[in-house]
Amino acid sequence: MSTTQTNKFEIIKASTSKINEVDFENLSFGSVFTDHLLECDYTNGQWQKPVIKPYAPFLLDPSVRVFHYGQAIFEGMKAYKDDDEALWLFRPDENYKRFNNSAVRMAMPEVPEEVFIEGLNQLLQLDEAWVKKGKGNTLYIRPFMIATGTGVIASPSNDYKFMIILSPAKSYYSGEVKVLIAEHYSRAANGGIGAAKAAGNYGAQFYPTSLANKEGFQQVIWTDDATHTKLEEAGTMNVFFRINDTLLTAPVSERILDGITRKSLIDIAEKEGIDVQIRPVLVSELVEASKNGTLKEIFGAGTAAVVNPIVGFSYQDVYYELPKTEDSMALRLKDMLTNIQHKLAEDTFGWTVKV
Amino acid sequence: MSTTQTNKFEIIKASTSKINEVDFENLSFGSVFTDHLLECDYTNGQWQKPVIKPYAPFLLDPSVRVFHYGQAIFEGMKAYKDDDEALWLFRPDENYKRFNNSAVRMAMPEVPEEVFIEGLNQLLQLDEAWVKKGKGNTLYIRPFMIATGTGVIASPSNDYKFMIILSPAKSYYSGEVKVLIAEHYSRAANGGIGAAKAAGNYGAQFYPTSLANKEGFQQVIWTDDATHTKLEEAGTMNVFFRINDTLLTAPVSERILDGITRKSLIDIAEKEGIDVQIRPVLVSELVEASKNGTLKEIFGAGTAAVVNPIVGFSYQDVYYELPKTEDSMALRLKDMLTNIQHKLAEDTFGWTVKV
Ligand SMILES: Cc1ncc(COP(=O)(O)O)c(C=O)c1O
Ligand SMILES: Cc1ncc(COP(=O)(O)O)c(C=O)c1O
Repeated sequence: MSTTQTNKFEIIKASTSKINEVDFENLSFGSVFTDHLLECDYTNGQWQKPVIKPYAPFLLDPSVRVFHYGQAIFEGMKAYKDDDEALWLFRPDENYKRFNNSAVRMAMPEVPEEVFIEGLNQLLQLDEAWVKKGKGNTLYIRPFMIATGTGVIASPSNDYKFMIILSPAKSYYSGEVKVLIAEHYSRAANGGIGAAKAAGNYGAQFYPTSLANKEGFQQVIWTDDATHTKLEEAGTMNVFFRINDTLLTAPVSERILDGITRKSLIDIAEKEGIDVQIRPVLVSELVEASKNGTLKEIFGAGTAAVVNPIVGFSYQDVYYELPKTEDSMALRLKDMLTNIQHKLAEDTFGWTVKV
Repeated sequence: MSTTQTNKFEIIKASTSKINEVDFENLSFGSVFTDHLLECDYTNGQWQKPVIKPYAPFLLDPSVRVFHYGQAIFEGMKAYKDDDEALWLFRPDENYKRFNNSAVRMAMPEVPEEVFIEGLNQLLQLDEAWVKKGKGNTLYIRPFMIATGTGVIASPSNDYKFMIILSPAKSYYSGEVKVLIAEHYSRAANGGIGAAKAAGNYGAQFYPTSLANKEGFQQVIWTDDATHTKLEEAGTMNVFFRINDTLLTAPVSERILDGITRKSLIDIAEKEGIDVQIRPVLVSELVEASKNGTLKEIFGAGTAAVVNPIVGFSYQDVYYELPKTEDSMALRLKDMLTNIQHKLAEDTFGWTVKV
């Protein structure tokens, strides 16, 4: 291992790379990590010098607050290589802003831009061989922060650890996705933490999702917890509904994550002249549109899967199958978005940022 | 260190004890831990042999799911010593049941009774010198479970770690507690995880509680997230309201933790002939009762503080002060409960269990 000190970062290079052990054609999402990670500790009311170092386990006291009180947030973003082997990020400023919004909501310190953005750039340069070019290939980026202060008392931690880890990812075809519309369980409360990428929001969904899985549905579309009449979002994706040629999606709120894929797709669709309506979408509308044949498509939108077409939904024990479409809006928008991300189409929005 | 193997447990004793370094008269809650902890890992679909060993930090991979998806639950219970130095637990079966209910809701494996209950007994015997006799002294017990499986994909972990750590605690007087009634933020959703002791429920409250702190309120009383008209519970306590000589408390629900202190106080109060009403309590009722002088007391009930009298509440920017009472129901019930716990009164309910 070799250590470099700059003004801003300490960089400890791994003596060997694991890259040759990795089968880049058969990657299971989120399971393989690159050689290095970024780590930055918050202690005594201050962020310490960030360190880039070999990916490895680390020690925690059994009483750290992330275990007991769930002070933990994360982001999910991707890096892409173009045909000239240049490395790109997609709207990293949006992830950075959202991360700090999540931090505030979870009573955690905001991370400085030079740690998050510059740190990420440094880390990516070091592990850039892990990003393969070609439209199916990306590097999934996982910034996260956990409370590392000790003591089993339900109050905010004084100490935190911010990390960025990197995982090479193939764009995946997740098979036919059927969804269940939530009638009892829910994801977020009014005045709760649904709009934050807080760890606790995800574990909370595993049990109701497993019940849906048992009935043959891969995902749940969550509804508002008070009335279960409004369609909100899926586990890790915002949701779009195409009725005739209009695209509908719920407005973001304190219950719904402000997805970057969602807002990018809205911009692309509007630029394409598609009628996009951002308004509460009722379950009853969806059922009605399915019955009268105007419901053409449903799809999820999120960084991991980009766009995930849904083949049908179940509500009150009735399964509604969607028609096969020749001319899928989901796939057309997905193609336009991934072309921008991989620098295969002009980025008129100014979303892509070179590493 | 000496190691003992029994059929069921591996016991590794610390070579020296930290007990002489501890000032038992000046303990800050939840910050000092005893010499040993219990650890039991779940891998390959099975609970492994539990180990009792010296309290120490342990290694975790940066991608473990407790960091990213908040699969983490806990319990809070206490051990007491009577005047003959015998060690007692209070309704441990209730904590055990609730722990496994939390596990199911968070898609985590249930912990076997011999690990949780027998393990706790073994651990307490080893560290029994840390429990001091006398009514103000207790040992706070923190069983918890975290997801230790690696991989940043939002699905349940395959691996888990169950632990029990112990912290000596003085009964505390937390000063005058003023509370704020929640009008915007909330703790739990309908169909959410509010009834589980899931880590994510607590971190979610820190920010709104810090806003209340800034206005001079130590705690928030949460209301239902849909209408904010019903009084639910405080951060780590259920809440009771005394109107004239009637004691009111909200029914437990999927939004409210089924507190063991709460249900024990209800039983004691009923035995004392107090009129107890378990029904939704409206904020408007509370305000009305305060205005017309029938509101006599409000108090929180939970394992840590036992009973926490509240001196006043704020709602819609109006502060309602409670009258000073000579004859406090809160303190009377607290005394009866702690007398049972410390074996100073006959336990006609059969709640106390010898270690
Ligand atoms: C709950 C939730 N909704 C939606 C999304 C989609 O957001 P983005 O498009 O920014 O990845 C995510 C994250 O990936 C999410 O976790
Ligand atoms: C949210 C919440 N409510 C109420 C309580 C009180 O429960 P118990 O009396 O079992 O300690 C607790 C735990 O201590 C809690 O965390």
